[in-house]
Amino acid sequence: MPELRKDPITHRWVIISTDRAKRPTDFSKARVEILGNGVCPFCYGNEAKTPPEIIAYGGNGRPANTPGWQVRVVPNKFPALGIEGSLDRQGFGLFDKMNGIGAHEVIIETPDHLSTLATVPDQQVEQVLWAYRDRMNDLKNDKRFRYILVFKNHGQAAGASLEHTHSQLIALAIIPKQVSEELENARHYFEEKERCIFCDIVRQEREDGQRVIAENEHCVALAPYAPRFPFETWVLPKQHGSAFENEPASVVSSVAGMLRNMLRRLDQVLDHPPYNFVLHTSPVGEEQNEHYHWHIEMMPTLTKVAGFEWGTGFYINPTPPEESAQFLREAEV
Amino acid sequence: MPELRKDPITHRWVIISTDRAKRPTDFSKARVEILGNGVCPFCYGNEAKTPPEIIAYGGNGRPANTPGWQVRVVPNKFPALGIEGSLDRQGFGLFDKMNGIGAHEVIIETPDHLSTLATVPDQQVEQVLWAYRDRMNDLKNDKRFRYILVFKNHGQAAGASLEHTHSQLIALAIIPKQVSEELENARHYFEEKERCIFCDIVRQEREDGQRVIAENEHCVALAPYAPRFPFETWVLPKQHGSAFENEPASVVSSVAGMLRNMLRRLDQVLDHPPYNFVLHTSPVGEEQNEHYHWHIEMMPTLTKVAGFEWGTGFYINPTPPEESAQFLREAEV
Repeated sequence: MPELRKDPITHRWVIISTDRAKRPTDFSKARVEILGNGVCPFCYGNEAKTPPEIIAYGGNGRPANTPGWQVRVVPNKFPALGIEGSLDRQGFGLFDKMNGIGAHEVIIETPDHLSTLATVPDQQVEQVLWAYRDRMNDLKNDKRFRYILVFKNHGQAAGASLEHTHSQLIALAIIPKQVSEELENARHYFEEKERCIFCDIVRQEREDGQRVIAENEHCVALAPYAPRFPFETWVLPKQHGSAFENEPASVVSSVAGMLRNMLRRLDQVLDHPPYNFVLHTSPVGEEQNEHYHWHIEMMPTLTKVAGFEWGTGFYINPTPPEESAQFLREAEV
Repeated sequence: MPELRKDPITHRWVIISTDRAKRPTDFSKARVEILGNGVCPFCYGNEAKTPPEIIAYGGNGRPANTPGWQVRVVPNKFPALGIEGSLDRQGFGLFDKMNGIGAHEVIIETPDHLSTLATVPDQQVEQVLWAYRDRMNDLKNDKRFRYILVFKNHGQAAGASLEHTHSQLIALAIIPKQVSEELENARHYFEEKERCIFCDIVRQEREDGQRVIAENEHCVALAPYAPRFPFETWVLPKQHGSAFENEPASVVSSVAGMLRNMLRRLDQVLDHPPYNFVLHTSPVGEEQNEHYHWHIEMMPTLTKVAGFEWGTGFYINPTPPEESAQFLREAEV
């Protein structure tokens, strides 16, 4: 008998198939292969092929836009939003619009074309997380922005258009609907219970254990109770923290270790799958709060989810999270 | 400059790229080809390869599960939900679950393996719509069900596992989140304005004209103001109707004509794209209301939308609806 499960944060019901559950080898997915053919704008020596860099780490004293960097952040050459201008909000009868003002940046995670975020050292992942933070905190000086979205598409099937490993950042003048729903539901829960719902979930999951994948000093990784996608994995800080970008260095270091650990487990169990991850943090100006708990949601691209799910918000997940957690927990990394 | 547009029903903001807008030929999509290889369980003579039929139209006096039918409805052989048993709602600390009770049926739209819903006659599409209605109205006798979802996946890239043209129906003991949000927002609008928001949109769009694709006696087809996907197309009744399954025969006939008309336009402009459509109607027991307006949302599968959009609810659409409406309006069908 399949189960209907309700996510306590979003209040979304999903169908979890428990009868004909899919194992890691049942998914016909596109293994991510890094070919290294052609000229790559993210490699050393091609710095002029990107817009001028915003920040770069490493290569002390090097001139801007030359080799020697370890992590490099550049504006997206084909941005989804424009940085210049005013919002110019307008209505047309029933409809509302504004100019597509925003920042769209690319975080080049390593100069090595053949590496991935799973194969670089932990310290390199840590540098990438510091680049996220630096950019988030800098963009907050621009008072037009209300939310900063950091995410990664890995592999063509997950939406990556260049294979050289990179993340993206989009600063928005609005709060995306799903983010505001998460925040609102977390706020309601706090009003009722005077506890953070994520803290409660972390506590209950650590006691229960069956959906926990790994823990380190400051972080826990788990398969959520009502995941939309097979092998969906969340990384959360064990202590309450409402904004990723305000965490102390010790937590950043723990997150880097846990993020890379999970990516290596996904690579091993699912044979280098395409994936996305999204950093969920508090909106600009609401960074200090008791109800929201920042975290990273990771989703390997395993199923052909089509317009039906988009059209309904209704998901059918063929792998129970207890099973995906067990596979990932038992992976040797 | 790209635009941020807000959908008045869901309150979702989307980015519409106006600078480097994509034309129909810019999408590298999987053209749907019907090969007709192998044994098809939906063809005449193979009726025993599906679970026993629930209803069938045509073939007067024919024995059940034999050839001669024109439209045939069978239980899904691999159902996402089970029909037998009780809901057995349970909580585990923070988490809620229930048994995955529901119906999952397949509507085989024609006996002809090589036809599609775009190539069969209008009367055949009308028969398919009557099959939806008959099944919806019958399933409402089962008091466990609160929502009945009718949808179609066309082509492998859109999630269809069999190429013989068919739709699906899922009866649920819950109301999917996106459906209840749509309903709630429409109810709020009605409370404030004492008008149906969909009626207002239909009125404004017909006056404005730039996003209208076609009209017939009872229906209008339009590109919504803030579409998530390129070439997203909605078919709505011009007169207020809250439940598709309660419309009179004259409206069903109009819907069939408009649905097929739109599918032929999509085939012509986008060269036989994979697509999904979803019927949005009122929940069971709330069929008579003034605030919700049933409609069909159609989404060709053109872009590689990945976990990022699922993770954030934030969409970037490279084709303004004014342009998709113009292409579809000018198609010769």
